[in-house]
Amino acid sequence: MLIQKSKDRLAPIGIFDSGVGGLTVFKEVRKTFPYENIVYFGDTARVPYGPKSDNTVIEYSIQNARFLIQLGVKIIIIACNTSSAVALDRLQDILQVPVLGVIQPGAETAVNTTKNGKIGVIGTEGTIRSKAYTNAIKSIDNQIEIFEKACPLFVSLAEEGWHRNKVSYDVAEIYLRELVNNGIDTLVLGCTHYPILKNIIQDVCGSEITLVDSSIAIQNHLKDYLPVNNDNITGKDYFFVSDNEEKFNNISKNILNICNFTLKKVKLGESWYID
Amino acid sequence: MLIQKSKDRLAPIGIFDSGVGGLTVFKEVRKTFPYENIVYFGDTARVPYGPKSDNTVIEYSIQNARFLIQLGVKIIIIACNTSSAVALDRLQDILQVPVLGVIQPGAETAVNTTKNGKIGVIGTEGTIRSKAYTNAIKSIDNQIEIFEKACPLFVSLAEEGWHRNKVSYDVAEIYLRELVNNGIDTLVLGCTHYPILKNIIQDVCGSEITLVDSSIAIQNHLKDYLPVNNDNITGKDYFFVSDNEEKFNNISKNILNICNFTLKKVKLGESWYID
Repeated sequence: MLIQKSKDRLAPIGIFDSGVGGLTVFKEVRKTFPYENIVYFGDTARVPYGPKSDNTVIEYSIQNARFLIQLGVKIIIIACNTSSAVALDRLQDILQVPVLGVIQPGAETAVNTTKNGKIGVIGTEGTIRSKAYTNAIKSIDNQIEIFEKACPLFVSLAEEGWHRNKVSYDVAEIYLRELVNNGIDTLVLGCTHYPILKNIIQDVCGSEITLVDSSIAIQNHLKDYLPVNNDNITGKDYFFVSDNEEKFNNISKNILNICNFTLKKVKLGESWYID
Repeated sequence: MLIQKSKDRLAPIGIFDSGVGGLTVFKEVRKTFPYENIVYFGDTARVPYGPKSDNTVIEYSIQNARFLIQLGVKIIIIACNTSSAVALDRLQDILQVPVLGVIQPGAETAVNTTKNGKIGVIGTEGTIRSKAYTNAIKSIDNQIEIFEKACPLFVSLAEEGWHRNKVSYDVAEIYLRELVNNGIDTLVLGCTHYPILKNIIQDVCGSEITLVDSSIAIQNHLKDYLPVNNDNITGKDYFFVSDNEEKFNNISKNILNICNFTLKKVKLGESWYID
């Protein structure tokens, strides 16, 4: 499974997301693989993917992946849960490089975490409708009970920056009460935006429920593909968005403390090279 | 100004919006012009436009308008406030048919409504950033004081169907309190989604503040272009979306009581004809 060829050493890891939410995944990958080059693409011109149909999400995901391939990436991580849920198989079919989604790692971590066999999953309408987490969890352990709930407002609340606001707390109460009452002991945050509301979600759930963040869970899967490396070099970051560079700048700097990076706005279909 | 040519009698009125919100405009146009054929296009594959950059909104608006032109429309109404705010001039420059936006009619109605000369305007980030309402109101009466506020969460709350929910009330309190405290007596609902939350907005504002709904305001402008007609015929409705026909069906039937219509999903760029 390891990507060993020396020509691939400097080829970047590619990450795409529907927007800025996937930066939570980027941040973890950067931490685990400090010496790798990473290209991140956020499809901010067409965000969000959550409420859109499967076919549209598949079409957009293929375009995003082709853009990364054009930049010479050696592996692709789909940071977006909705896209991972509906487009992963298709991308694995048509692309020559390994493609990883966030669903399988999140599901495995949840199964390893639960003690009472009751797992909750929250995500966008598209992710929940796909039942991707339920299928992934059931294929590991068919006995586990799974309770799913779409929480579409969480994305807007996170983007509005209301991560300490009483309104967000009330919304979380409405969305999560039934899951908590069902006795889950583990909750999968099945959307890259949700870790931004982690404190509020944990408050509503109570401390007995463990939150699973798939942006962290995917790191172990990545290690199956990328050799551990002790090079004393620092990898470069390349960021591309399809719209709204300024908003991307603010979120990456203020929320994620990512600084000193190159950011370019691109139209999908254009040609780019990394210097 | 009147479109008089007989060949144009059966040519449809074209309406486009970023999604389903513009159906509030469609409904009013249908009521005022029962004998006209109407084509509606909702760009549900790329909704929302509110948080996106001006250039992206202009590009999408041109594609939408070209799709309607291809169907032979005699006039185009931009139902979307964001698109009206940033793309109207450009569309008027490049198209051969009249193009109407919702900003100017909303601004005129607000100026005619206010008694104390203090008007509030709420809308998406794009609409408020553009200052389109402020400019339109100032060009009519430079003495009027205008207070603008972006309310991005209102769109998600309306789409979630939370139009009687306490959370929506609390969000409205947070967004509107300052406008109310500034002493406005008129509030422009500068986004097609906001009339869905009308009751909550009116509750928070109190009965002394008059709400202006630009989907109603635009009807008088339309009458400048379309002759009043006593034909005893009923116009046909044609609906097109770029994604999610099912969601469109639900909203149009349940919220707007629009039934018995033809709905087709299209990819922009494809050729279509009306039978």
